[in-house]
Amino acid sequence: MSRVPRSEGLPLNRVLVTGAGGYIGRHVVASLKEVGFEVHCSGRRYCLSDATWHCADLLDSVARRNLVSAIRPSHLVHLAWCSEHGRFWNDPANLNWAAATLDLVHCFVAEGGARLLVAGTCAEYDWSVPHHTMHEIATPRRPSTLYGTAKVCTQELISAYADKVGLSHAWAVLFYSFGAFEDHRRFVPSVTNSLLAGHTTIVRSGVLRRDMLDAREVGQAIVALLQSPVVGRVNVASGTAITLKEVAEMIGAIVGNVNLLDVLDFNSPHDEPIQLVADVRRLRDEVGFRSTIQLHDALISTVEWWRSVNTARDV
Amino acid sequence: MSRVPRSEGLPLNRVLVTGAGGYIGRHVVASLKEVGFEVHCSGRRYCLSDATWHCADLLDSVARRNLVSAIRPSHLVHLAWCSEHGRFWNDPANLNWAAATLDLVHCFVAEGGARLLVAGTCAEYDWSVPHHTMHEIATPRRPSTLYGTAKVCTQELISAYADKVGLSHAWAVLFYSFGAFEDHRRFVPSVTNSLLAGHTTIVRSGVLRRDMLDAREVGQAIVALLQSPVVGRVNVASGTAITLKEVAEMIGAIVGNVNLLDVLDFNSPHDEPIQLVADVRRLRDEVGFRSTIQLHDALISTVEWWRSVNTARDV
Repeated sequence: MSRVPRSEGLPLNRVLVTGAGGYIGRHVVASLKEVGFEVHCSGRRYCLSDATWHCADLLDSVARRNLVSAIRPSHLVHLAWCSEHGRFWNDPANLNWAAATLDLVHCFVAEGGARLLVAGTCAEYDWSVPHHTMHEIATPRRPSTLYGTAKVCTQELISAYADKVGLSHAWAVLFYSFGAFEDHRRFVPSVTNSLLAGHTTIVRSGVLRRDMLDAREVGQAIVALLQSPVVGRVNVASGTAITLKEVAEMIGAIVGNVNLLDVLDFNSPHDEPIQLVADVRRLRDEVGFRSTIQLHDALISTVEWWRSVNTARDV
Repeated sequence: MSRVPRSEGLPLNRVLVTGAGGYIGRHVVASLKEVGFEVHCSGRRYCLSDATWHCADLLDSVARRNLVSAIRPSHLVHLAWCSEHGRFWNDPANLNWAAATLDLVHCFVAEGGARLLVAGTCAEYDWSVPHHTMHEIATPRRPSTLYGTAKVCTQELISAYADKVGLSHAWAVLFYSFGAFEDHRRFVPSVTNSLLAGHTTIVRSGVLRRDMLDAREVGQAIVALLQSPVVGRVNVASGTAITLKEVAEMIGAIVGNVNLLDVLDFNSPHDEPIQLVADVRRLRDEVGFRSTIQLHDALISTVEWWRSVNTARDV
């Protein structure tokens, strides 16, 4: 089998976004619309009122096939995966998502799909030794979690398959991000909401350095990568490391009660790597994407978003 | 999720064999019966008249789930995969088989399955540099084919998943074998049948050294591995290299017309590795299996089998 040619009359800018209702998905959908794609969204639960929405459980093989054959997209941005906070790292459902992803890609190709982008993760890289920056090729991939393993294996297989059938594919290796719609239990939302509520806020792992990107720019970078001819794995990140202490203090200054922060300088009980920062040369030089939003400005927007959400709740 | 406990009353020796009608499958089924398993076979096309047979297309997710929930096996020997001679190396269907295998394993665990064995391949190993013997851990896995990549990725993922859910799993890395029911286009059958027909028989790659095991012993070794508590990858092979020239000459001597052989000593056009031989210490010392059939005796049986098949056809 080689790739199925696209039928005449089908648009060449019709994209299906899975996991479109998720935190990253919403920002990707917004960016896709901005650049003129015909956007089709899928998700199990959520609905974006301003998008063409298809409710589908991608773990159901019939629903999966029906979705793809109903839309016949030219582009596929596959973001859906198990993502339950804390649990996803070693959730056995990672196996199901790997299997469903392989089958989804096969359906996409069978329906004439041409360009694929799947969300990867910095957890694919070896975290056991400190790396100055994580490079797509030079840094070994040796994940310590089922999530990381499932992503690595899925990527390897899709890559080998894509080469055989002539599918153009990119793998967006996502690092840390923050912004509207993020899970409230994650770092930026939990610090922000605690400070907004006027609580004393303990940051245990202030020493950790992370690569943080505004989620709106994650969406833009993913769309830039999708539109480019770049194939293979590309880090999607800022390329700059910042300590969690600095991030918390910026939020404190924005909220106006930095005195409520109690930042501790020891590592977390989970022995997380001290530094996770991406080499972004592929994203910058090959894809042509460069982050332009200053971290401080991005945090101002994020704090404002959480303030508005909380106010809406209070009303 | 942790492993589902097995319901009371369900037998602890009920095995499902996928690909049971295949060349290796038939020998595995025979060995399983010998050691007292309650054997359930599945396959798409073939039926073994002396076994409990379930016709199922494992690439169909509904058929897959129905099969496993109807049988509720304690043991699963998963041999089914795309295997069309010549084509399977880079068949895009390798992607489907990887996906189907992951889902099958999930179904097996969900129905209380306890012990899993999946067929791997020596094509998982790096063939680009000559290795004295191929060792499960010491020899790098760097496959050059979609088939090898699909097997490696499937194994990595099942291994990580099994660790999380408490599934006992073994991966039988199969090398070369020969015997009854082998595809007639493969080396031993094609030389045998050509010589039995009295044709001049050219062996182009006489110089290649391979690890050859009687298929009956492959079946026995797989069953020994299934019954053992050994976890992870185990080479299933003889541990001895023999040139294709020597194999062809043995067949010629057995058939009685070695003079019809024209053995050339250059490598094949496909640049196949000069030597593929397994380190069998895990199989011998941990599983306790040791090959006892002499190669010459094994070839006598094989020639006899082909002679009987051809005679039956002639009648």
